[in-house]
Amino acid sequence: MLGRLNHVALAVPDLSVAVERYQAMLGAEISAPLALPEHGVTVVFVDLGNTKLELLEPLGDNSPIAAFLAKSPKGGMHHVCYEVSDIRVARDRILAAGGRVLGDGEPMIGAHGRPVLFVHPGDLFGTLTELEEA
Amino acid sequence: MLGRLNHVALAVPDLSVAVERYQAMLGAEISAPLALPEHGVTVVFVDLGNTKLELLEPLGDNSPIAAFLAKSPKGGMHHVCYEVSDIRVARDRILAAGGRVLGDGEPMIGAHGRPVLFVHPGDLFGTLTELEEA
Repeated sequence: MLGRLNHVALAVPDLSVAVERYQAMLGAEISAPLALPEHGVTVVFVDLGNTKLELLEPLGDNSPIAAFLAKSPKGGMHHVCYEVSDIRVARDRILAAGGRVLGDGEPMIGAHGRPVLFVHPGDLFGTLTELEEA
Repeated sequence: MLGRLNHVALAVPDLSVAVERYQAMLGAEISAPLALPEHGVTVVFVDLGNTKLELLEPLGDNSPIAAFLAKSPKGGMHHVCYEVSDIRVARDRILAAGGRVLGDGEPMIGAHGRPVLFVHPGDLFGTLTELEEA
């Protein structure tokens, strides 16, 4: 069921500082910032050839990464996102195995315009895990 | 400079429990466990098609992930590893940009038998970052 790694998301407190650092230190190829107010983040994409890194900065008052940065003010690894072919089949398998899906259990439309869901990090050993229908 | 994502490494307290959970909940394709006593971990590889996930369990008395699990007993996202074409060129660029390389600054031989180094997580916004010469 588990498909490709769609992205790894890292939370950073200041996106412009992070972009400069990733360029200077690692020679990273980075997109222009994209504000996603409906997802509460501003994001840049770091092209890694086989997948991408997303650097996330909080946007607005109810950012889903605000609590993470309050706990880890320097930033850190926020979540991984795997592709699945059918998000509802994936959801049903997770629930059948005793896992918890965040929210009301229905897939949402994610930051890439595709159906997504998040598995409770407590069910996957502390790693917040997003699944996206590819 | 920054090449492909070689792997994402997640620390787990019990590898056999994690393997069962990833198989049952996500239908993951997972290798047999590989003990790497010289690196202080037992690892399994989760095939993601474009890259891989590494699930790490501490091995021995001086495991490099023991402190991480003491702080986060449930486990969590431990590091990301990017490929570079020349590890010394990468090291020199990091140092020139004011970054810190863990250890004595010389590349080590990593878990895949290739030269690697780790950038101090404090220089990359809380994310422990490994570079591996591809």
